[in-house]
Amino acid sequence: MEFDEYLRTRREIVEEELNNYFPETLFPETLVKSIRYSLLNSGKRIRPILMLAVADMFGTPYQTILPFACAVEMIHTYTLIHDDLPAMDNDDYRRGKLTNHKVFGDAIAILAGDALLTEAFRIMSEAALKNKFSSKKTLEVIYEISSGCGINGVVGGQVMDILSENKTIDLPTLQYIHTHKTGALIVAVVRAGAILSFATKRDLQRLTEYGKCLGLAFQIQDDILDVEGSFEKLGKKPGVDSAKKKNTYPSLVGMKESKEMLAQLMDKAYKVLLPYDEKAKYLRNFIFYLQNRQS
Amino acid sequence: MEFDEYLRTRREIVEEELNNYFPETLFPETLVKSIRYSLLNSGKRIRPILMLAVADMFGTPYQTILPFACAVEMIHTYTLIHDDLPAMDNDDYRRGKLTNHKVFGDAIAILAGDALLTEAFRIMSEAALKNKFSSKKTLEVIYEISSGCGINGVVGGQVMDILSENKTIDLPTLQYIHTHKTGALIVAVVRAGAILSFATKRDLQRLTEYGKCLGLAFQIQDDILDVEGSFEKLGKKPGVDSAKKKNTYPSLVGMKESKEMLAQLMDKAYKVLLPYDEKAKYLRNFIFYLQNRQS
Repeated sequence: MEFDEYLRTRREIVEEELNNYFPETLFPETLVKSIRYSLLNSGKRIRPILMLAVADMFGTPYQTILPFACAVEMIHTYTLIHDDLPAMDNDDYRRGKLTNHKVFGDAIAILAGDALLTEAFRIMSEAALKNKFSSKKTLEVIYEISSGCGINGVVGGQVMDILSENKTIDLPTLQYIHTHKTGALIVAVVRAGAILSFATKRDLQRLTEYGKCLGLAFQIQDDILDVEGSFEKLGKKPGVDSAKKKNTYPSLVGMKESKEMLAQLMDKAYKVLLPYDEKAKYLRNFIFYLQNRQS
Repeated sequence: MEFDEYLRTRREIVEEELNNYFPETLFPETLVKSIRYSLLNSGKRIRPILMLAVADMFGTPYQTILPFACAVEMIHTYTLIHDDLPAMDNDDYRRGKLTNHKVFGDAIAILAGDALLTEAFRIMSEAALKNKFSSKKTLEVIYEISSGCGINGVVGGQVMDILSENKTIDLPTLQYIHTHKTGALIVAVVRAGAILSFATKRDLQRLTEYGKCLGLAFQIQDDILDVEGSFEKLGKKPGVDSAKKKNTYPSLVGMKESKEMLAQLMDKAYKVLLPYDEKAKYLRNFIFYLQNRQS
């Protein structure tokens, strides 16, 4: 299967399952509408598909991984809803549509985020109990994902990001923000896919390295797109970061150096996959996909 | 041990452990300060102590339960921080102190809540993996707690509460709000204590009934205190609910009927514990403690 086809089919599987988790008939109606608005909003589904691709490499059936992949997309969506709030980044648009709080108000947006984060853990635990999948592996994945999203992960990164606005920070601080705000969840996603596939310690180490490179590269590319991208492709205004005096790689080390760092990370990610040869083809495709994306 | 003594010693154990989970040295500093401000703020610790008391009845060592008890207090604290936000209940005081967002700002308060919810799941999974406690039982508890806090639990209740402000609602809607906003987590706490003690299905059914009565009674008593309490004892202004035209039991069915309902629920909770005789003494004490509390 070509990578485009792989992305498309996997996205469909993920979106169908997400839709099943939050049917319109669920109560309370307003909350469910708000959740569906942001969750079923044509995202790229990079994180769940990445988890599926890792598991594919080990030959794990996607049905085993799907609830965990969906849980991660739910968590990712909660971070977007909360980040967009007026109290945080105060963004009006996301993926070309009004942000959640612009449509449902701040209170419901906060609660929709809270619900998505909470339900992610319900869905993971429920799936394992129902399908009699290894409780131990499931707990390990819950540990990975919660670690990647908490104080020492996404939330820690977002806090430092907010505290750094309108300040000039040094490169280590920017690196902290990026590795935590974006990188930690991507690393957790890759590790989760491996853990659920009963990967060896050695495999887990390699894939962790792959995830780290990919996660940081992803964010550097985001920073670059904020300078060079267009509204049509991004679905939001470019130049937002610099207008808010947010620290980015281009603003801190320059555009040329940023692109070089990006290339280096991509190269490192590529090399760490060499032992897996043809089996890692989709993971290898992910590297080029992220490097060439326009949104 | 007398019940007062039991509450005091258990509270100390819980607070010491919570303090260990979030030492001041943790990074990012501002986030940790905000978390510590609300988490180590002399709460009554009803939920964790209730979980410990259920486990005590089964003779389970408290060390096994403690991480789960702390996780539930963290989740409870996250709901308070988010509920107090200007976008939600807009409260300036909580337990006699300024609310989290009044001290740290809305962004950090939202993120402190997000972190507490996330870290609760990290702490539960980590404890089980480290202590080699049953992964299956741990997953069951994660399922119980996440179910009790999500769409069909605390968040669902809070959504309906917010949507009902300045509206007159009917008794079933008020009951929905109370059983979800407060009741669901208390039921989850009681069930978690039993599950972690490898309780039988029969015991689990009885304790679920106990938890349901206790949870609803707790909220009715809260409504009553908002009318009859004082600032000194409550640590916040009484009459806030009626000033906001919030629907409460006294406002909907009258004070006399509210007190009768409270008494009936207490009686039912008492009766369901009869088979456990002396072993349930602390759970029995909880009933009277909640009925007589002034804050």
